[in-house]
Amino acid sequence: MTTIKYPGGTVPAAKKTRTKAKLTIAAGNRGMDFENEINDTNAYYLERDIAVISKRPTPINIVKVDYTHGPKITQAYFEAQSTTDYNGIYKGRYLDFEAKSTHSKTSFPLSNIAPQQVRHLRNVIRHGGIAFFLIQIVAEEKVYLLDAEYICDFYENKPRKSIPFSVIKEKGHLVPFAYRPRHDYLAVVDEVFLKNEQ
Amino acid sequence: MTTIKYPGGTVPAAKKTRTKAKLTIAAGNRGMDFENEINDTNAYYLERDIAVISKRPTPINIVKVDYTHGPKITQAYFEAQSTTDYNGIYKGRYLDFEAKSTHSKTSFPLSNIAPQQVRHLRNVIRHGGIAFFLIQIVAEEKVYLLDAEYICDFYENKPRKSIPFSVIKEKGHLVPFAYRPRHDYLAVVDEVFLKNEQ
Repeated sequence: MTTIKYPGGTVPAAKKTRTKAKLTIAAGNRGMDFENEINDTNAYYLERDIAVISKRPTPINIVKVDYTHGPKITQAYFEAQSTTDYNGIYKGRYLDFEAKSTHSKTSFPLSNIAPQQVRHLRNVIRHGGIAFFLIQIVAEEKVYLLDAEYICDFYENKPRKSIPFSVIKEKGHLVPFAYRPRHDYLAVVDEVFLKNEQ
Repeated sequence: MTTIKYPGGTVPAAKKTRTKAKLTIAAGNRGMDFENEINDTNAYYLERDIAVISKRPTPINIVKVDYTHGPKITQAYFEAQSTTDYNGIYKGRYLDFEAKSTHSKTSFPLSNIAPQQVRHLRNVIRHGGIAFFLIQIVAEEKVYLLDAEYICDFYENKPRKSIPFSVIKEKGHLVPFAYRPRHDYLAVVDEVFLKNEQ
């Protein structure tokens, strides 16, 4: 969800309890960051009974727990998400997606995507699920939905190490931005995946 | 997944890195515990391309992170899962379930289920998903699948504080046990939820 890189190549999702690093990112994004905005969008969908979509918690590898005053984790490390950040159900369909934010001015680096995420999304598509990416271009304050099939193809063929914004705009679909829901990506899902079913 | 209770009323899922408490539980279960067995079953389903079902990581509330040598979490606490432990896609259908293990000799205590899990499963059912509980009766070495609708009704009406094993056996469906898959719960899902669709 962020653009910080650290050993292991993966990126921890935002935490409720903000750490120093987290605060810097939030400030860079001018307020609520992309992950919080998507969580807020999902909360809206749930309240309005439109869909049930939730964020998978960041996997943590726990090394030490102190049980003196109830369980307190004293040593642990972030782990790579083996799937994607979000999944759920919409109009009876299984839905699965990854949300990524980039501060680049020109293209979306494929290094933001882990191989196991591509494998997972391929599996989801093969089993009849709806799979996509939400890519936020921070500099332009725009979010695009891209069919996971397109991104997986691009990732596996790797014609470039990053997807130019021009390609994202051509192949992707602009997600409407509003006060609430913040990023109405299900409106785009209707258009892109469910048009023939309605 | 375990029967340890701690403040907040919820229960942390088993961790890869085994803590002292975890080892005790595992020993009580004679080897691989229920959660690991379900994870192994899901790995089998994935390998055979039968279904894509994954465990949601346990949510952790992170208080302190030390960035001196890469991010190391130094203070954190287990949080309640706001949904269920498992979800995914099977035969194009969204599937969502909670797995619980009880060491009781007579009944399954409803205190093992959190109100937000009941709400979540109700939402899933309303949106057309397949929702159920897997309940392991440790003393009998048996696992039963129960339609979430039945458990949610029982939970909300609360005729008792626990569901007697006799009721679980009457209303539930025995999950076949084998070497691999360990608990073939999708065979039961076929019978209970998908019989009319095939």
